[in-house]
Amino acid sequence: MNISFNSSLVGEQRVLKIFRKLLPEISEMQRVVREGGFEDARASLNLPLTRRWANESQRLAKESAIANASNLLVIGIGGSNLGTIAVQQAVLGKNYNLTARRKVFYLDTVDPDYTASTLEFVKSELKRGKKAVVNVISKSGSTTETISLFNVVLSQLKPYDSELEKMIVVTTNRDSALWNYAMKKGLRALEIPKMVGGRYSVLSNVGLFPLAFLGVNVRALLAGAREMVERAVSKNQRFNLPAKLAAVQYAHFLSGKMIVNLFLFGNDFESVGKWYRQLVGESLGKEFNLVGKRVETGLTPIVSVGTTDLHSVGQLYLGGPNDKFSIFVKTNKWRSKLRVKKQAEFEKLVRDIGGKSLGEIMDAVFDGVLRTYAKRKRPFVRVELDGKTER
Amino acid sequence: MNISFNSSLVGEQRVLKIFRKLLPEISEMQRVVREGGFEDARASLNLPLTRRWANESQRLAKESAIANASNLLVIGIGGSNLGTIAVQQAVLGKNYNLTARRKVFYLDTVDPDYTASTLEFVKSELKRGKKAVVNVISKSGSTTETISLFNVVLSQLKPYDSELEKMIVVTTNRDSALWNYAMKKGLRALEIPKMVGGRYSVLSNVGLFPLAFLGVNVRALLAGAREMVERAVSKNQRFNLPAKLAAVQYAHFLSGKMIVNLFLFGNDFESVGKWYRQLVGESLGKEFNLVGKRVETGLTPIVSVGTTDLHSVGQLYLGGPNDKFSIFVKTNKWRSKLRVKKQAEFEKLVRDIGGKSLGEIMDAVFDGVLRTYAKRKRPFVRVELDGKTER
Repeated sequence: MNISFNSSLVGEQRVLKIFRKLLPEISEMQRVVREGGFEDARASLNLPLTRRWANESQRLAKESAIANASNLLVIGIGGSNLGTIAVQQAVLGKNYNLTARRKVFYLDTVDPDYTASTLEFVKSELKRGKKAVVNVISKSGSTTETISLFNVVLSQLKPYDSELEKMIVVTTNRDSALWNYAMKKGLRALEIPKMVGGRYSVLSNVGLFPLAFLGVNVRALLAGAREMVERAVSKNQRFNLPAKLAAVQYAHFLSGKMIVNLFLFGNDFESVGKWYRQLVGESLGKEFNLVGKRVETGLTPIVSVGTTDLHSVGQLYLGGPNDKFSIFVKTNKWRSKLRVKKQAEFEKLVRDIGGKSLGEIMDAVFDGVLRTYAKRKRPFVRVELDGKTER
Repeated sequence: MNISFNSSLVGEQRVLKIFRKLLPEISEMQRVVREGGFEDARASLNLPLTRRWANESQRLAKESAIANASNLLVIGIGGSNLGTIAVQQAVLGKNYNLTARRKVFYLDTVDPDYTASTLEFVKSELKRGKKAVVNVISKSGSTTETISLFNVVLSQLKPYDSELEKMIVVTTNRDSALWNYAMKKGLRALEIPKMVGGRYSVLSNVGLFPLAFLGVNVRALLAGAREMVERAVSKNQRFNLPAKLAAVQYAHFLSGKMIVNLFLFGNDFESVGKWYRQLVGESLGKEFNLVGKRVETGLTPIVSVGTTDLHSVGQLYLGGPNDKFSIFVKTNKWRSKLRVKKQAEFEKLVRDIGGKSLGEIMDAVFDGVLRTYAKRKRPFVRVELDGKTER
């Protein structure tokens, strides 16, 4: 991964000044990583540094009853599913269910129609003798949507699988009411460390079990995260890309740019954007500051998908109010090499696309848009990923 | 449909004053409707008032070669697919492809991986003797993404269906390069009236053909739109809900609320939000005003889905900066009546959900959120739909 700050429109000195203010927090982060464990509010930093949860999740995913299932229902909302969907779609593709041997469905809200159509499909699978894993995830164990859906899923599917309870995996805080329910009923249960905040919990059992079940390489995922933790706890401003990015965003926030636009080039990244909305929205959107003073502040995160959104909101972004800071993300490697065939009659429709791969056309549009942003003095950073893999 | 303005935080007098400024535009709209035809920049108003395009699209959708196909590939971006996806998902459901007899795929951007996985599926269908309709839609006929994808789809699928060209439907401006290509090759072609802007073209052949093919009742859709045109050209402020909503939004824009949040309760509405982003982004996001002065202005539209987003960005919306105007949308009728089973042990997890339908739980959360918004003086309007039908 690489981030280019060339068009961030914040000077080196300014970034350095803000970065210095972050040093006490970085020291605390270093301490948490050094001490290990999950007893601190920053405990999510330690998720990639232990094998415990990955071992637990992988072991369960490999148990024959579970491993033989062909459907996974993930019941959870917010911190209980957004990170998982983000990883799953980025790594396995947005079209995953279309051809997958194991399909996955996320039930997060009490939408009757969406729930019913999903369950109709799963019922048809159960009728054909296929099995479904039901992973119900709630940190507190008392999320209204999750518990309502859990109840509905159980009562709807049980008639089609008398052994459904063996296929239930409950993921929750140890000792929550849901945990106790699972213990009483003899259900499989996975723990979420209490001090790991929901939105930062994807690398706990919350994300690791469903991802392992779907065939995502969770060890590689943790290895990638470890590299980023290493950067995030560094006091070297050049190496600590997360802190540098935060400093740039903060500078724009101070000058009134209250919107941050995560502009992702690639369909499979859309759900990364949805998770990002939660990370920014919940972490920075605050009624009160840390000492209890009413501040009503925060950045509003928005998500755009390229090139699609150039044809919908592109004109607003480039010509409208200059009130946004943008983070452009692209991948340097696509799985497919699909290419436009060179044909004289197509050259008359659009010139210079014949013989190019779709990835090259995407890159050309990406570069063109960034040039226009730079020319119009709309601030942005450019993030390049080495590929759409776990690591 | 009903809109409640009770919590819009804009006084009646203020709305009336802005509404009066809209009267000259409303007169022009009345003139266009009276005169009929498609020669005016406001021509999209007349789309619901003619049967011509619906007849054309329906006739084609019913032709046996087309009607027997089990897959539809819609190739188009921005104004060429956003409205169609919005209607399709709202009426047929977001899970539509899961169990549908006729599957639909939207190819809009040059994402190699998404395109490849979609085509792999369609190829497997063609191999099994199933047929696919390829509807390529570009108003100008020279959209880079659309033409690139059209080329790739042709070269990838032709080996699996020697008669593929008979299954191509080109939708474009008469006399565009794409139109001429279609004529030369003897492809089926549908016209888009030149003066109908892309983002307003869903009720032309752009949307009507794919929707008719998928079994959407396009006559009912047009009937619903006619009712809204009737309101939109009315000089009665109480009856003209669109103008009244515009006036309220404008008042908030003047006081610095530059973000408008379309908060949709129901998964099937998410794509309505994506279309709405284009409508607001392109129609209001402008570098220059009508007399050529640089203004760099516009509202930034954002889309939220309830109850999902209450668990991701809800805290930002309620506690963060008071810089948004929100439009809450709910339906008064769900297709499914799924209900939470009354069980003592579930009452211990979340109280008072036993015996309730999922729709009732959704309504309860919806009402609770709106009460909190009102208490915190965050401005909003409340839209209630009579159901998720075409009309």
